[in-house]
Amino acid sequence: MGMVLAALSLILSQTPVDKTSDMLMEKGMRELGAYRILSSLCKDVGARLSGSPEAAKAVKWGEAQMHAIGLDNVHLLPCVVPHWVRGKEVATFWTPTPNGNGPKAKLAICALGMSVGTPDAGVTGDVVEVTSFKDLDAKADKVKGKIVFFNHSMNPTFTSTFQAYGDAVGYRWGAASAAAKYGAKAALVRSVTMRYDDVPHTGAMAYDKAYDKIPVAAVSLLSANRLHKAIAAGVVQLNLQLGCQTLPDEPSASVVGEIVGTEHPEEVIVIGGHLDSWDKGQGAHDDGAGISHTLEALRVIKELGIKPKRTIRAVLFMNEENGGRGATSYHDYAAASKTEKALAAIESDSGGFAPRGFGTSLKDVSILDAWKTGLARFEADRFYGGGEGGADIEPLRALNTALFGLVPESSRYFDFHHSDNDRLTNVHPRELELGALAVARLALYLADNGVPAPKPAEKPAKG
Amino acid sequence: MGMVLAALSLILSQTPVDKTSDMLMEKGMRELGAYRILSSLCKDVGARLSGSPEAAKAVKWGEAQMHAIGLDNVHLLPCVVPHWVRGKEVATFWTPTPNGNGPKAKLAICALGMSVGTPDAGVTGDVVEVTSFKDLDAKADKVKGKIVFFNHSMNPTFTSTFQAYGDAVGYRWGAASAAAKYGAKAALVRSVTMRYDDVPHTGAMAYDKAYDKIPVAAVSLLSANRLHKAIAAGVVQLNLQLGCQTLPDEPSASVVGEIVGTEHPEEVIVIGGHLDSWDKGQGAHDDGAGISHTLEALRVIKELGIKPKRTIRAVLFMNEENGGRGATSYHDYAAASKTEKALAAIESDSGGFAPRGFGTSLKDVSILDAWKTGLARFEADRFYGGGEGGADIEPLRALNTALFGLVPESSRYFDFHHSDNDRLTNVHPRELELGALAVARLALYLADNGVPAPKPAEKPAKG
Repeated sequence: MGMVLAALSLILSQTPVDKTSDMLMEKGMRELGAYRILSSLCKDVGARLSGSPEAAKAVKWGEAQMHAIGLDNVHLLPCVVPHWVRGKEVATFWTPTPNGNGPKAKLAICALGMSVGTPDAGVTGDVVEVTSFKDLDAKADKVKGKIVFFNHSMNPTFTSTFQAYGDAVGYRWGAASAAAKYGAKAALVRSVTMRYDDVPHTGAMAYDKAYDKIPVAAVSLLSANRLHKAIAAGVVQLNLQLGCQTLPDEPSASVVGEIVGTEHPEEVIVIGGHLDSWDKGQGAHDDGAGISHTLEALRVIKELGIKPKRTIRAVLFMNEENGGRGATSYHDYAAASKTEKALAAIESDSGGFAPRGFGTSLKDVSILDAWKTGLARFEADRFYGGGEGGADIEPLRALNTALFGLVPESSRYFDFHHSDNDRLTNVHPRELELGALAVARLALYLADNGVPAPKPAEKPAKG
Repeated sequence: MGMVLAALSLILSQTPVDKTSDMLMEKGMRELGAYRILSSLCKDVGARLSGSPEAAKAVKWGEAQMHAIGLDNVHLLPCVVPHWVRGKEVATFWTPTPNGNGPKAKLAICALGMSVGTPDAGVTGDVVEVTSFKDLDAKADKVKGKIVFFNHSMNPTFTSTFQAYGDAVGYRWGAASAAAKYGAKAALVRSVTMRYDDVPHTGAMAYDKAYDKIPVAAVSLLSANRLHKAIAAGVVQLNLQLGCQTLPDEPSASVVGEIVGTEHPEEVIVIGGHLDSWDKGQGAHDDGAGISHTLEALRVIKELGIKPKRTIRAVLFMNEENGGRGATSYHDYAAASKTEKALAAIESDSGGFAPRGFGTSLKDVSILDAWKTGLARFEADRFYGGGEGGADIEPLRALNTALFGLVPESSRYFDFHHSDNDRLTNVHPRELELGALAVARLALYLADNGVPAPKPAEKPAKG
């Protein structure tokens, strides 16, 4: 590693100064508050699936955090959430032979969220492997009474792994019903990850009312490869035991607090993430990162004595992973309000890696060019227009709210996502803090300026 | 984590297509060749300090890699390198009391590269702590016969950790002579890192001929804090034993190979990294990343059958860390060549994290705007103008070569840099591959277009 001092000094001297960003960076980087908040969430609460005791603990934790920061109007926004619980999870396979069954081998699996369970002894059947929904349709007559293994890989050739996720996750959502349509008795889905280990990744699925509800589980990549090899070599039978079940809905809540604006307090900028997590690991990146970004952003703004002109409101949304009930209840509140205007919303739900910029519902991002100055301090100055901000704030689109979503570096996210590896140890304090500061800076730009007006249509050049 | 499919599809559809980049991404991401190359370097060679048997092994390894790829004109470019070797390294400190010495505690230290050693029994003296060169000057009369502890922290508030490195590394280079100027007998320097562990980080230092050569070692952050606390509580004495020494120079070499250009073979684009590493860990990020970026870039270009119009030459520079003899010998070769033109050079010496763009010696980076399209495929489309490319290619500036340096995400780099933690396990295969592909794409832009001409000065608007 050589010395590139001259280059760095030049770069430094070329970068325009934004005093607010400098203040945020000074405080944020010296205190690394986001990591402290995330540590507390991971260690004191841990994984916190909607409806669970841990999720209830998370609500109390969130309230306490907001009080500790000294936010205004800290309160709970009630919602009713589904309560699905995991149980025993075992998958064993073997090759049937004329003299009995070959040796049994285990697969590393976990039930997909909202799946039905199996009888105690599980379900047993021949395994049919498919690589796509189209492939399944082509094998429709071979599936009845069998277990369908959807072995669709995450495509590594997209620029962002989030694009790859979008391409693959449809199998997670729809595998069970697609297989049930042709009479299958269970489904397995290759985990939506690109990391080759034996750790399965969960996530929500949904049943199509038209078909039987069959049990469905995710398989780790190493286990998926083992199963694939066995199937390539001959007939494979599998026994799947899932003890998961859906219990009655539970009352829960999102947690809300704010810094009231000094000039237009009725114009609200929401910043948030989702408070629930899957019941795996510690929900560190998903979405402990968004929770800590949100709380840290308001903590530094408050402690620096910055007074935003419009209200910046933190919402820790409950139930994003399997129902969106927190998002719905917040939308309903905002839609019904006769005094407030839901001006803008920023969600962080893409992990705690180094921020690159923000996706936004705004189509013409050139109206945000002036804001790149302050965001460049955290090198988070890209805007990806015409998009979304996040699942929890998407309902606000109907209220004409300008939506923003933090976009971090994506390479590693799905290594950990929805798995036992989503732990604090895989979050980097500096990267996490940069995300919090980027959210803070954007929130302040919105609070002080509102949403910039669209540019007038260009006049044709005088001929 | 919600579904932001709509956003991603929109982003995807908005991104202009670059067919070359698509080809590179398809092949690179499916094969992850850079990580395979780096694995081989780390496991078959390991840490490889100039002059060591491992460095000699690295030269053979590099040649074999180039032959395996099928590069043209694979050869060694000889140079003579310094041969410094580490020895025993122990630092113990205690508080002297009227009844003898307090209990002795160890510090985690390592000699700085090129430091002189100590007698077997080491050097012993009171410790004086300073926080800057200015602070040292203010304490000049307190330093004679003592051990100076330079406790300057890396500043976390810079946007890039490389800026923080530039701010702190002057202490590593100059601490020994600064302290010797006032009669100190040894120096200790806080490691240039922001990671709080007990692992020291080495790196080169240089002696000012005007002063005595005193031994100097780096201290881990945890040990620096322990020493600081002890000094704050009272007098501290320390014994430093370093068995390092400088042996006679050794013959060595950089490794060179290329794809000869089809139209202007005499115009050369160099791509490279440094083949030597410090004698810590495996030299994975520093600079195994640059070596694997370089070799993988040419491997994918070659195997895809892409024929660049100008020559793309890989140079694995020897001795970047402590002498730059490989860089000097390449410059001398290029300066003396009557046939070749050293058109451009790209160095990767900032680690294997996800690429963000390139620093460049070109001042007006708007002339490169068209190239952002292809680089955006790897989200490596930033250009930081008026800077450097890297220590190994800097000498080519004198030949008017356009210099480029890969700039990856910087947050984690100095956690590992020059320490036992610089290992393969801390490199991410996808991030590493993105860097290789970005280097490949820029090299192809340069090979096919040359260096774009500066824009003509803007004409004043007609009044």
